[in-house]
Amino acid sequence: MINENFPDILFNDLKIIRDKRPLIHNITNFVVMNQTANVILSIGASPVMSHSISEVEEMVSFAGALVLNIGTLWDELVDSMIKAGEIANKKSIPVILDPVGSGATRLRTESALRILNEVHISVIRGNPAEIKSITGKDAKIKGVDSIELNKIEELTEIAKKVSNRYDSVVAITGKTDIISDGKNIFLSHNGDDMLKHITGTGCSSTVSCACFMSVQKDMMIATLEGLSYYSVAAEIVGKEIKTPGSFETGLRDKLFNMTEEEYRDYFRIEEL
Amino acid sequence: MINENFPDILFNDLKIIRDKRPLIHNITNFVVMNQTANVILSIGASPVMSHSISEVEEMVSFAGALVLNIGTLWDELVDSMIKAGEIANKKSIPVILDPVGSGATRLRTESALRILNEVHISVIRGNPAEIKSITGKDAKIKGVDSIELNKIEELTEIAKKVSNRYDSVVAITGKTDIISDGKNIFLSHNGDDMLKHITGTGCSSTVSCACFMSVQKDMMIATLEGLSYYSVAAEIVGKEIKTPGSFETGLRDKLFNMTEEEYRDYFRIEEL
Amino acid sequence: MINENFPDILFNDLKIIRDKRPLIHNITNFVVMNQTANVILSIGASPVMSHSISEVEEMVSFAGALVLNIGTLWDELVDSMIKAGEIANKKSIPVILDPVGSGATRLRTESALRILNEVHISVIRGNPAEIKSITGKDAKIKGVDSIELNKIEELTEIAKKVSNRYDSVVAITGKTDIISDGKNIFLSHNGDDMLKHITGTGCSSTVSCACFMSVQKDMMIATLEGLSYYSVAAEIVGKEIKTPGSFETGLRDKLFNMTEEEYRDYFRIEEL
Repeated sequence: MINENFPDILFNDLKIIRDKRPLIHNITNFVVMNQTANVILSIGASPVMSHSISEVEEMVSFAGALVLNIGTLWDELVDSMIKAGEIANKKSIPVILDPVGSGATRLRTESALRILNEVHISVIRGNPAEIKSITGKDAKIKGVDSIELNKIEELTEIAKKVSNRYDSVVAITGKTDIISDGKNIFLSHNGDDMLKHITGTGCSSTVSCACFMSVQKDMMIATLEGLSYYSVAAEIVGKEIKTPGSFETGLRDKLFNMTEEEYRDYFRIEEL
Repeated sequence: MINENFPDILFNDLKIIRDKRPLIHNITNFVVMNQTANVILSIGASPVMSHSISEVEEMVSFAGALVLNIGTLWDELVDSMIKAGEIANKKSIPVILDPVGSGATRLRTESALRILNEVHISVIRGNPAEIKSITGKDAKIKGVDSIELNKIEELTEIAKKVSNRYDSVVAITGKTDIISDGKNIFLSHNGDDMLKHITGTGCSSTVSCACFMSVQKDMMIATLEGLSYYSVAAEIVGKEIKTPGSFETGLRDKLFNMTEEEYRDYFRIEEL
Repeated sequence: MINENFPDILFNDLKIIRDKRPLIHNITNFVVMNQTANVILSIGASPVMSHSISEVEEMVSFAGALVLNIGTLWDELVDSMIKAGEIANKKSIPVILDPVGSGATRLRTESALRILNEVHISVIRGNPAEIKSITGKDAKIKGVDSIELNKIEELTEIAKKVSNRYDSVVAITGKTDIISDGKNIFLSHNGDDMLKHITGTGCSSTVSCACFMSVQKDMMIATLEGLSYYSVAAEIVGKEIKTPGSFETGLRDKLFNMTEEEYRDYFRIEEL
């Protein structure tokens, strides 16, 4: 499935994104709104941030993908997310959930689970503790960052389990990204240490997936494309830039102008 | 009205802004708050973002101009906008409306119309579909971006009509900006393709207008100054920088340090 | 107390921050959320932005410090701040208050006073007009910026008075920062003019203090560390960069990679 043709598939999908400029509807947190809108624009799609329950039904109906991100949550926002998600499900618009901080507070864990129970989610992307929290198992969480060292084998089992429970592609991201559709497991090995020193990089890789989900019907491939494109960009930029402000500017630039040759030189995806 | 003296007028107003640092009160969307505060600071005025109905009356009373931007709207926010707008009207503080996404959802179109009916708006700035939506005509909208190709002749008629209906200067912005006070029409031809690849550039040109509206009594001239200053800065920066992250940083820098000579070399405004 | 060993103390605390990555819980304004999260990450701590009354109690219980910033206030937010503050007090987690715009509107002044009366605040950081407003005296405010020129002598008296009233370290920041614990007064003289041309620099120096408060038990020293580290970084960057977009990127970089030698060359703290 993933071989040396993968860069061709990815850059073909990227070209479709840039030609069609699909709308990505985000119901997301206040910290990253500007940043993820710009990530979506650098990749080539068209972002809209809209969370009012009075308009999410209309807005999502134009969308190529819907992003639900619980990073700065309040109770009513979950209702908007579910309303938008239900319309997306009816219209076969793919939905990605970023359960930011799930496991850290009851509000977040319960909201993530409520969304998962009421909306069919195509892709779930989170860090190890966030994904673990939606299996019902305990995980040590510190704020919205995961602090437990996890073994890849343990995480692949969790990814498979969550994937099967919710019929979703599951991506557990970190130094190595683990992606599963319940049967297959892929590992993506790109990235850069500098990502830890800027906020919203998880949320950004989520919207990168959403861009590809809006044009690529296979959700497993779309997720691999989104995560790999973002982390290869980070890795390329991190070779030259070792400070966070300049790194973030460079990353946004590289998401815009990466060539297929550059991508091909760097990407490292393996099937387990 | 607009001739070779225009740069002198603009840079004289810019000097007044930088000397007096007028307060620009923004009731605006969550995506661009940080960005437009920084645009206002680069131009030389003093931004405040404040939307609580408990304080907008007091806050706007200190302001040199009021910005109403409906980009991430919820129902109660419109009440705050109208309350602030009414005080601004009483105190002759100019108000600019940015009807982001009007036409895309009923909430946005109805909110824009409600504001226009309850507050006298000095300047309305939007893209073609947004401005068309407040004429009552249908326009194709995709999220908050306009997708219809519009002929300049058609748009000048719309600008005039909206201007006369609401007694406002109307600016329809795009590759060419069209500005009308109901009788006269000006076209402003600056800008750069890179503006499409960063979020909040429309909102930024709106606050640029607000800065000039706080010191220049002729709203038509203030609008031309605001739009032209912003798009000339973009055009200068776009000559050198072809990637979005670096472009946005450069644009913020150029709004701060553009010389009258640079502006004079680039600005292209014509009267129809 | 502050002598040539101060850089050693500061960089030792910085090392502890970077090793332990304490969680800094922010209930803050929408303008600076992304920016201050990144300042916290550049310094080395771990930010979380969370304001829902349904989760602030749980979230703050993991925190090394709590930041309360009233920059975009609405009524219910104050309840969340007080709830989080009470838990922080119970668990001896230090709390810093940034009373943005206090004095400009009744909502802000009353909210600042209500928080001060219901929560023990370890450190209060504001500009002259904001701090003056919480003494009950009138101060001229324009939006969220202070416009009154204040003599250092007058301000040191105010700092002492507020400090004694609330049993807090008080920092009045501006060209010179004045810090008092009610008895002692320190002046910190670093900074750069460019700070006036970017938004959120006051809020950023507040979170810088919060980072140090999470590891340094002496709140006076922690406040000096936070303010001095931030303003020295600004001064170093301002030597080379004279435009606001590039300056902000450079500042974020310098907060990440400043050496003790650089800091030692620049810092200017005096005891009155």
